Amino acid sequence: MLPPGWAAIPRERFAAHGFEAVIADQDPYDPETIHYFSGFRPPPGFMKTLPNLKAIFSLGAGVDGFLRDPDLPRHVPLVRFVDPTLMHEMAQYVVMHVLIAHRGQRFFDAAQKESSWRQRMLARPSRDTRIGMLGLGDIGSTIAASLLPFDFQLSGWSRSRKTVPGVKSFAGESELPDFLAQCDYLVCVLPLTDATRGIMNAKLFAQLPKGAWVINVARGGHLIEADLIAALDSGHLAGAVLDVFQAEPMGPDNPIWQHPKITATPHIAALTDQKAALAFIGDCVARSESGRALDHVVDVTRGY
Amino acid sequence: MLPPGWAAIPRERFAAHGFEAVIADQDPYDPETIHYFSGFRPPPGFMKTLPNLKAIFSLGAGVDGFLRDPDLPRHVPLVRFVDPTLMHEMAQYVVMHVLIAHRGQRFFDAAQKESSWRQRMLARPSRDTRIGMLGLGDIGSTIAASLLPFDFQLSGWSRSRKTVPGVKSFAGESELPDFLAQCDYLVCVLPLTDATRGIMNAKLFAQLPKGAWVINVARGGHLIEADLIAALDSGHLAGAVLDVFQAEPMGPDNPIWQHPKITATPHIAALTDQKAALAFIGDCVARSESGRALDHVVDVTRGY
Repeated sequence: MLPPGWAAIPRERFAAHGFEAVIADQDPYDPETIHYFSGFRPPPGFMKTLPNLKAIFSLGAGVDGFLRDPDLPRHVPLVRFVDPTLMHEMAQYVVMHVLIAHRGQRFFDAAQKESSWRQRMLARPSRDTRIGMLGLGDIGSTIAASLLPFDFQLSGWSRSRKTVPGVKSFAGESELPDFLAQCDYLVCVLPLTDATRGIMNAKLFAQLPKGAWVINVARGGHLIEADLIAALDSGHLAGAVLDVFQAEPMGPDNPIWQHPKITATPHIAALTDQKAALAFIGDCVARSESGRALDHVVDVTRGY
Repeated sequence: MLPPGWAAIPRERFAAHGFEAVIADQDPYDPETIHYFSGFRPPPGFMKTLPNLKAIFSLGAGVDGFLRDPDLPRHVPLVRFVDPTLMHEMAQYVVMHVLIAHRGQRFFDAAQKESSWRQRMLARPSRDTRIGMLGLGDIGSTIAASLLPFDFQLSGWSRSRKTVPGVKSFAGESELPDFLAQCDYLVCVLPLTDATRGIMNAKLFAQLPKGAWVINVARGGHLIEADLIAALDSGHLAGAVLDVFQAEPMGPDNPIWQHPKITATPHIAALTDQKAALAFIGDCVARSESGRALDHVVDVTRGY
């Protein structure tokens, strides 16, 4: 069973992967015949209506859209979508926005609008600029690898110690303050779990250096938006780039849109490519049907 | 002898490198006592007034500001400033602007201005997007290395065949058409010589795929600006990013400023860092005084 947006894919494409597809909200189906489910954020309670599921495939890198369902069948393997294309896109987004801020491109945009030749040096040399990944898994490591050629200082924080080339690893709660104190740019790529919900709040912002930037490409639930706005308005933080929000789509009256220190984009940092997702699901189903173990199965107690 | 902008550097800094500095347009000097000259674009005829020069150091990666002088003493070694910091900055600029175009960030900026949640997929997958460096020397290779993590298709054109990881090398006049035909983004980093002056003209643009972008971080002299505007206005080219211009600083009445398909910045892609330049010159002078050969000496007949 696949999400409604997949109705545009020709039936033959599904058949080529060896499965018969049912599109939610469109095709009739017998719940007992559904062996695999794929989607992003099913309504709570829906998953338990499918009694014969062999696996669930998330169409995003995060699985919080499933774990929020208290009735999620915990015995069914829940698989994260791990796709190099998606990780490259996330890295492109982060690198682009770090560079726009680092190089003052908005200043030059404003000068161009006034037809004015205004030169300016970098506010801070690249080699003295510190970028920290809050979360150093597949995505955090891919972002770090993409930032590596530019001569920045890179670090990352995660629950357990990681070895990533060119990246200083901070681990566990005890090292979080030291990590934060050296982040000129903080890039959140954490999974959303009970342990990380609301992690970006006033207390965390106070631990960042004055003039730091916050970039959130994870989930809106990581960020207390009012605390961010207060830290920007006080001048402690210099700017923020947000791709995810507490409420999505964000309504036109949300003050985030017009805040002069925020760049806001509509959850597009990494859009799942249907072709790549179909290939991924096809591969997973083939593995499952031939009795092989599935990769990227989420530890539901840990939440990622 | 150093350029006027260097007057702000304390004398001790020069002494630390073992030389006595004379700042042009400020300090009195006896031309016969000057052994080394450093600058960017001295007035034509000036260099020949210094009879005892042992070497000339360009403060930019390009040396066209010296070679335009018909009276340049050709027997004095002319040294290009080769600085990793400068190359990283150039790469940052190019990667940032490729990503802004590739990801449609201007579209999302406009949507934010209207407080409007407008999602959009990438116009073209990264893996199908082809970026070509016109010039594949130190700078072109550094840019390519910085683009490598993002899953683009990379190529480069140069006079002689090059081996750069992940980059398809095109060489010589005969392969220029094939190179151009596969550039969705053309990034000019050529040295400015008699052979490359005006190379980006109507004839070259016609050989690029429809919808291509042109990025010029080399010299204004490479580009026929009127031809670029015509190719943008006809719809053949999709956009351009220019950091260098025929006349610098560009006057407020130049139509480039307000062209809707051009991003224009005031020659800031890579600004020479005085500290790095001083260290470079100090090292070169020490080599020269101890009788060792200088690196990065320009072949004045070739022009780079």
